[in-house]
Amino acid sequence: MPSALTNFTECIARELSAVDDRFHAELSSDLRCVNTLVKHVSRFRGKMLRPCLVLLSGKACAASELGDAHVTLATVVEMVHMATLVHDDVLDEAELRRKGATINHLRGNEAAVLLGDYLISHSYHLCSSLESQFASRLIARTTNQVCEGELLQIENRNNIDLDDQTYLKIITLKTAVLTAACCTLGATFAGADERRVKALETYGLSLGVAFQIQDDILDIVGDTSTVGKTLGIDIEKGKMTLPMIHFLRTAPAEHRALLRSLLASRDADKVERIRNLILPSKSIQHARDRAHELVDRAREAIADLPDSEAKRVLDAMAEFVVTRPM
Amino acid sequence: MPSALTNFTECIARELSAVDDRFHAELSSDLRCVNTLVKHVSRFRGKMLRPCLVLLSGKACAASELGDAHVTLATVVEMVHMATLVHDDVLDEAELRRKGATINHLRGNEAAVLLGDYLISHSYHLCSSLESQFASRLIARTTNQVCEGELLQIENRNNIDLDDQTYLKIITLKTAVLTAACCTLGATFAGADERRVKALETYGLSLGVAFQIQDDILDIVGDTSTVGKTLGIDIEKGKMTLPMIHFLRTAPAEHRALLRSLLASRDADKVERIRNLILPSKSIQHARDRAHELVDRAREAIADLPDSEAKRVLDAMAEFVVTRPM
Repeated sequence: MPSALTNFTECIARELSAVDDRFHAELSSDLRCVNTLVKHVSRFRGKMLRPCLVLLSGKACAASELGDAHVTLATVVEMVHMATLVHDDVLDEAELRRKGATINHLRGNEAAVLLGDYLISHSYHLCSSLESQFASRLIARTTNQVCEGELLQIENRNNIDLDDQTYLKIITLKTAVLTAACCTLGATFAGADERRVKALETYGLSLGVAFQIQDDILDIVGDTSTVGKTLGIDIEKGKMTLPMIHFLRTAPAEHRALLRSLLASRDADKVERIRNLILPSKSIQHARDRAHELVDRAREAIADLPDSEAKRVLDAMAEFVVTRPM
Repeated sequence: MPSALTNFTECIARELSAVDDRFHAELSSDLRCVNTLVKHVSRFRGKMLRPCLVLLSGKACAASELGDAHVTLATVVEMVHMATLVHDDVLDEAELRRKGATINHLRGNEAAVLLGDYLISHSYHLCSSLESQFASRLIARTTNQVCEGELLQIENRNNIDLDDQTYLKIITLKTAVLTAACCTLGATFAGADERRVKALETYGLSLGVAFQIQDDILDIVGDTSTVGKTLGIDIEKGKMTLPMIHFLRTAPAEHRALLRSLLASRDADKVERIRNLILPSKSIQHARDRAHELVDRAREAIADLPDSEAKRVLDAMAEFVVTRPM
């Protein structure tokens, strides 16, 4: 796992390795052309954040070792996430993902649309192998919401007047409901009671929103070689994010006017100029503060859990989500 | 239901109307922008072939009236089909579908990708509302295969040497496994025994292959105003279909050479010239003959079913599939 989370995952190393095997077993096909595409997409698997959330939530609630269901669920959420990445790259027309060329850039939008469909289909297929319908229902409800979030996002493209509330609704739907589902599934399949499941759901939801705010901050302040994906895309694609929304509400009038005119322009150095305008303002810090508040909420939610290695890792991961440089 | 199948569906009119209601109930969202897109896509719902197959297979096997599970399943397969249509139109860059502008043409590829995702997510969501996992497993396995078929198809784009066998594999995966699944589900949920389920699966599979061959024939010989969707797309997109494959194997050498050079060209009147070359040949009739053989196989498969209105309609539908002008 090529990841800055590696330090955190010692206590679930065995399960993560099983997730890897399950991932490849589920996606392998009789058709060579399918395997070639899947092989490429596997190369830009990333931090395995979502499988980690399933497994750690499970461990933090389980009386005994995790069984096969947790490995299945962790693989399912990784596939769902990969599917959204592949389709996102079509939407974003991105060329770079995890330091490798994106599928759409390499093989065209058609292959990318179909590969995303293949991943999502296999995620439901794998999920339906479980005995109960509980996970299938939760995963499908979650992907319904992810699609709604994405649709709301493109509806608000170039909406310079986007407010905080709608921004939060978009990122909750497109990112946080899935991280919440990971924690809910992990806890539920470990036999946790309702109150504890709810606590982990709150943890996952807050962490997901914080994670997306950090992503949006990195899109402005990040360094492409560290982050490993095309940056400045939010600006290019007219996606308003928290730092920009804050800037347009609080910066001096002439700065606000300049940002508005830059956002509307098609200048080649538009992204660079917007960065230079926002970086010295208080708006990046404002977004960081909001993300930190959410991390605090996530950590509070699990404070009552009995002490365990898994709980300590969940606690540290919440912090990592908003300090990561990638 | 604006369809030439209307005459066939009297015996399932009540259930089809319930499918319509279920379809809208499942897809309705709190978000206005989502409802607007869904409303548009609903306008080009078509023949309802797949829901009809679920319901008629159910009726043909059931001892009593069909229950709610059949309505659910019929809605699920229609949503799966709509999702593939919406993504197909992105792949094909089509502008016209069922006499209305396609989503991608109206709202851009992004909305079309996401709307397809929304439809597929809701189809699994609705399917997971059933008590047993049987349908979820079959539907997910089927969509796995549909994706494989589509990927195999784009892998063979512009492959002038495509053989019959690979062509049949492509259309079986991308079209016929879903029609087969419709019949399997309809029969299974009506309590049919294994032999009868198998008979209906064979019916659905043969009918699906025949249906796709007829679609491919219409793409060459059809009239846009009757068929109601952009034609000549197979040629434009380098998709080799049965009439072309046959022509390249059997036509006089100079005709074969002309087709090869036309397929490789970028002439504006390429589609027209290819039509004019193939129409007088025996290749359209060859494809029609193959489709009719499959229809015979479909009808044979259900010959042993006890007589019923539903069985007679299934029989007539098989014939309709290869004689329809749209």
